[in-house]
Amino acid sequence: MSETLSAAIPSTMRVSLLRGVRDLVLDERPVPEPGPHQVLVRVTAVGTCGSDVHYYEEGRIGSFVVRQPLVLGHESGGVVAAVGPGVTRNRPGQRVSIEPGVPCFTCDQCRTGRYNLCPDMRFFGTPPIDGAFSEYVLVHEAMAHPVPDTLSDEAAALLEPLSVGVWACRKAQVGPGSRVLVTGAGPIGLIALQTARAFGADEIVVTDVRPHRLDLAADLGADAVVNVAERAVTGFEPDVLLECSGVPAAIGAAIRLVGRAGRVVLIGMGGDEIPLPLDHVQRYEIQVTGTFRYANTWPAAIALAASGKVDLDRLVTHRFDLADAEQALTVAARDETAVKPVVRP
Amino acid sequence: MSETLSAAIPSTMRVSLLRGVRDLVLDERPVPEPGPHQVLVRVTAVGTCGSDVHYYEEGRIGSFVVRQPLVLGHESGGVVAAVGPGVTRNRPGQRVSIEPGVPCFTCDQCRTGRYNLCPDMRFFGTPPIDGAFSEYVLVHEAMAHPVPDTLSDEAAALLEPLSVGVWACRKAQVGPGSRVLVTGAGPIGLIALQTARAFGADEIVVTDVRPHRLDLAADLGADAVVNVAERAVTGFEPDVLLECSGVPAAIGAAIRLVGRAGRVVLIGMGGDEIPLPLDHVQRYEIQVTGTFRYANTWPAAIALAASGKVDLDRLVTHRFDLADAEQALTVAARDETAVKPVVRP
Amino acid sequence: MSETLSAAIPSTMRVSLLRGVRDLVLDERPVPEPGPHQVLVRVTAVGTCGSDVHYYEEGRIGSFVVRQPLVLGHESGGVVAAVGPGVTRNRPGQRVSIEPGVPCFTCDQCRTGRYNLCPDMRFFGTPPIDGAFSEYVLVHEAMAHPVPDTLSDEAAALLEPLSVGVWACRKAQVGPGSRVLVTGAGPIGLIALQTARAFGADEIVVTDVRPHRLDLAADLGADAVVNVAERAVTGFEPDVLLECSGVPAAIGAAIRLVGRAGRVVLIGMGGDEIPLPLDHVQRYEIQVTGTFRYANTWPAAIALAASGKVDLDRLVTHRFDLADAEQALTVAARDETAVKPVVRP
Amino acid sequence: MSETLSAAIPSTMRVSLLRGVRDLVLDERPVPEPGPHQVLVRVTAVGTCGSDVHYYEEGRIGSFVVRQPLVLGHESGGVVAAVGPGVTRNRPGQRVSIEPGVPCFTCDQCRTGRYNLCPDMRFFGTPPIDGAFSEYVLVHEAMAHPVPDTLSDEAAALLEPLSVGVWACRKAQVGPGSRVLVTGAGPIGLIALQTARAFGADEIVVTDVRPHRLDLAADLGADAVVNVAERAVTGFEPDVLLECSGVPAAIGAAIRLVGRAGRVVLIGMGGDEIPLPLDHVQRYEIQVTGTFRYANTWPAAIALAASGKVDLDRLVTHRFDLADAEQALTVAARDETAVKPVVRP
Repeated sequence: MSETLSAAIPSTMRVSLLRGVRDLVLDERPVPEPGPHQVLVRVTAVGTCGSDVHYYEEGRIGSFVVRQPLVLGHESGGVVAAVGPGVTRNRPGQRVSIEPGVPCFTCDQCRTGRYNLCPDMRFFGTPPIDGAFSEYVLVHEAMAHPVPDTLSDEAAALLEPLSVGVWACRKAQVGPGSRVLVTGAGPIGLIALQTARAFGADEIVVTDVRPHRLDLAADLGADAVVNVAERAVTGFEPDVLLECSGVPAAIGAAIRLVGRAGRVVLIGMGGDEIPLPLDHVQRYEIQVTGTFRYANTWPAAIALAASGKVDLDRLVTHRFDLADAEQALTVAARDETAVKPVVRP
Repeated sequence: MSETLSAAIPSTMRVSLLRGVRDLVLDERPVPEPGPHQVLVRVTAVGTCGSDVHYYEEGRIGSFVVRQPLVLGHESGGVVAAVGPGVTRNRPGQRVSIEPGVPCFTCDQCRTGRYNLCPDMRFFGTPPIDGAFSEYVLVHEAMAHPVPDTLSDEAAALLEPLSVGVWACRKAQVGPGSRVLVTGAGPIGLIALQTARAFGADEIVVTDVRPHRLDLAADLGADAVVNVAERAVTGFEPDVLLECSGVPAAIGAAIRLVGRAGRVVLIGMGGDEIPLPLDHVQRYEIQVTGTFRYANTWPAAIALAASGKVDLDRLVTHRFDLADAEQALTVAARDETAVKPVVRP
Repeated sequence: MSETLSAAIPSTMRVSLLRGVRDLVLDERPVPEPGPHQVLVRVTAVGTCGSDVHYYEEGRIGSFVVRQPLVLGHESGGVVAAVGPGVTRNRPGQRVSIEPGVPCFTCDQCRTGRYNLCPDMRFFGTPPIDGAFSEYVLVHEAMAHPVPDTLSDEAAALLEPLSVGVWACRKAQVGPGSRVLVTGAGPIGLIALQTARAFGADEIVVTDVRPHRLDLAADLGADAVVNVAERAVTGFEPDVLLECSGVPAAIGAAIRLVGRAGRVVLIGMGGDEIPLPLDHVQRYEIQVTGTFRYANTWPAAIALAASGKVDLDRLVTHRFDLADAEQALTVAARDETAVKPVVRP
Repeated sequence: MSETLSAAIPSTMRVSLLRGVRDLVLDERPVPEPGPHQVLVRVTAVGTCGSDVHYYEEGRIGSFVVRQPLVLGHESGGVVAAVGPGVTRNRPGQRVSIEPGVPCFTCDQCRTGRYNLCPDMRFFGTPPIDGAFSEYVLVHEAMAHPVPDTLSDEAAALLEPLSVGVWACRKAQVGPGSRVLVTGAGPIGLIALQTARAFGADEIVVTDVRPHRLDLAADLGADAVVNVAERAVTGFEPDVLLECSGVPAAIGAAIRLVGRAGRVVLIGMGGDEIPLPLDHVQRYEIQVTGTFRYANTWPAAIALAASGKVDLDRLVTHRFDLADAEQALTVAARDETAVKPVVRP
């Protein structure tokens, strides 16, 4: 046991374990010991994400397959309980938000600042790496970001999806004067809306087919919302498209709306191929980029959440104990009113 | 007549006029008088481009339809014969390469340096704007770029397709160490190959299905050529794809080859939609961009051609008199050995 | 007279004319007629700027010397009263903010989007080009930017200094999470502060030696203000320095505060040379850039002012009739409480 | 001893040790054992650099002071002799170029791709980190870059100064059509010249006060050379200045030559402050950046050297045995004909 590991740390902890499709059980495991440059974090909140739901309901996402019991959860925050060798700064007791992917740090992608593309990334809750539906987790000290006291435990956890929004807005070069179209008003779309505003966007339109989601988008500051099941977006030529729906046909249509020299960021996952309107992309010189998670986004995400520019607490619609993680996933999957159910270990 | 218009300028000139599908005739017109800030250029060489062939053979390219007799040709160079009011620099007698699109200069796109996206662009040989299959043409003085004597008349004309290559390499951020895949070894592909090399690219692979084109690519410096009718590209992970084929299915396959954080520039036209491999574009954060002509490329293009880094003369396979423009287009369309037939008015 | 010039436009107008050092008189001139692509604007408000004060008090700014009677003023807005040939959009009656520099639009700098660097720029109130201390002014239609009704006449005029702030924040890549040091709390510094915030900056510190200016900075949202006559900035490592003081010694000291990979934008003018701390600039790879006015900033500036993110009305401390322009300049120069005196023709 | 350490590795090795000012002795030390992710490299060539000379002659460079015996040398290449735990790729026997600075890999600077700015950088031959004037050195596997057989041992060593040139050209955005001024024709200036050419620069002028250096620059491809002891540079307006002289007064003068929107990269070290011509930097919006070593440059440097675009062997003027390292430093410091003396352990 590390010297700094206080007596208050139990020897075992509860984890929520996915053993197969729709088979989630509470299990008990030894509390792990932090290795070099690692910190042990007592988890206080974990958001449920669409990918957690996918693994729970289908046992896989594309080529990622759950082949052995897996702990889900990658949107998490907590308190540093112990530190491993080589951790020099005063960390114990610090409230942190966990960046859930630990790269190798030294490959070409890592050295150029694109650690999210590291081929050896170990990402929470992605087979075979365990996640944060657990009382304690280990993470590299560099990935345990201190958060100010003004940030709630749940907001600390939700800095992860906020990072997705920050990364997308950076790639899209959102700034003062930008006109932004957000397609899809799920949790990421609602965060993208707020993030774009915080980046200075001037006019933001959000589309979806679910009325209550569009209401929430309007409530969170969208200048206009459009139910694309009822009508098309008209009279709005965005210079940025933040695609959060993952619906191939909708993506093609949305790209055709984008104005000259516009930027399209493909955030929503779904389907192998999307139809790219070549003629429009060429004549208007549209730049289309995919995003894969994020890199170096926590400082900005912390600033946006702490300053109140982005309201993460607002997205938390349900709260569950770790023992009820299955219910959290079910609500996330099936309850129309759910935006972001949170598990509180 | 402008005062500077010398006595040597005739009052009429020959033009090659497209009156309908496969109906090209030699016509006579008055030599036009340069307006404010315009120069009159005596044309010495005009390249034939795929778009000229399209208008000749089909009377249209997508939404651009030839509705009235049209002079084709937009790859041209010549000698300044006269200048209009307001042209202050000493231009008469100057050898120039003509940038064939004259934008409005003052709209939002123009003012931000993207004049190629100007909605009011007037582009040579694109309905209803006449082109350069003509003994004389008028153009804004800013678009008549002086060229050094070391550049041949034909190379001066071919700075236009070279500009396409320069623009693509800029968008793709080609530089020292880049690994580049060029798909399609037509004139633009062969220029893209040379341009990428001049930008510092390290390893360049060219694909096509026409053996003699691949031979020419190898001859022009490709590190490897692949006949994709026979085998797939293997063992090469480009960080840049310069897509010059315009074949939708091939584009999707080529994008899947591109490495992490790679850039794809879609130059080749063809078809309304291409299948974009969403998962690959996301996981590898590929950036896909369309190009539409070019902006601010002539100075670099002149430097590349004048220094010998790009060999344009090499691409000229056939030469025709203005009276034989029809033959030039036919050769461009049907002769397998043709790369760039040139018309010499 | 242009056809659209309504009967309500008088044949003569009052202008405030600078005849020599501290010699400003009210004069009468014919109302000019708009040329091609020009609009005639009835001026409703003109801000006074430090450069106006310089010309008034010293007759020159560096190499710019007032050699003939000059109309000062370049921060202006008004209402379109008439249009010249070629103006196609419906402009008369439109409220506009005037971008006061008209470039040639076609030189290399203009074509690449850097029209602020056009060697042939004609800039309001800069010898020998007359400015806006006048009842009417002519300007190219592209430089008369429509503003929404929610923007006051004075705010429309002050979009010009706001553009300075927008341009600087773009060059400095201010964004969410940025820590910004603004040195100098004059009008530009106070605008830079607000603009940086609107760009998403997280922590902003403002320095000056005038207590009431620092109070105003705090009031406008600075996280901290420092009177550098009393103490140095400590405990703050900015990643952006927006230098608005123009005091050479202060600039060197401020640059030494900037953190790794930081950006320094030199906005404040003053003195021929500043001491650049080479070792710090190298070890921390600081990027130092000068700004010269702005390019393509009005759309963003309008969005920032109209959305309330930047409060321009707050900066207006004094108002004067055109006949009292001299008093406006004197107040701007000598009155400690003055931030932005405005002339209302 | 690591298992892969072959029997051929001796237990002790010779190193050249700097014990004090001008006190360099040959010493014997145990061959170190590679730790986790480290490789042991048998050194084949080490270049001498100006900083080595400074430490030898003055015992310090600014705040870096030699307080204990130090091994100099940071331009090195060799052959992998053994590997430590965790090194998975097949490395033994591989010829490598050594990137001599090992950062922490995990701090904010490292994670954003700017590992050259890592506060915990351990850099060869910089107190108190030993360098490569040694028969064997240890380095992190990520910093031992494989080189092709076509590259000589000495060229492998000189990829380090070439990296300085690559980094500078990237910061300066050198590309096709660039006009580049290189001030100072020492080893770095001569490499910057060649690198700028390889990046596509069109016209390159080199200045110095030493005639034989200027001759060498001309020989290596400079379009013009200017002895600034005799005359000023005239008739050349660079858009890039690669400052390699470190002479404060010369830097100010050179910056005044740079054209609109030009980029200045300060590579040469020397003196605490340089006079920055504020007015010019503002009116022309010059961007001035310092460089500190390099990051992620080896792949491009290898490509440039292996393709022959940059000739590093040409710079090697003298060769010495490790026992004669003192002579190498003396020649580097005093011999006018010396460009790059190399030590061959």
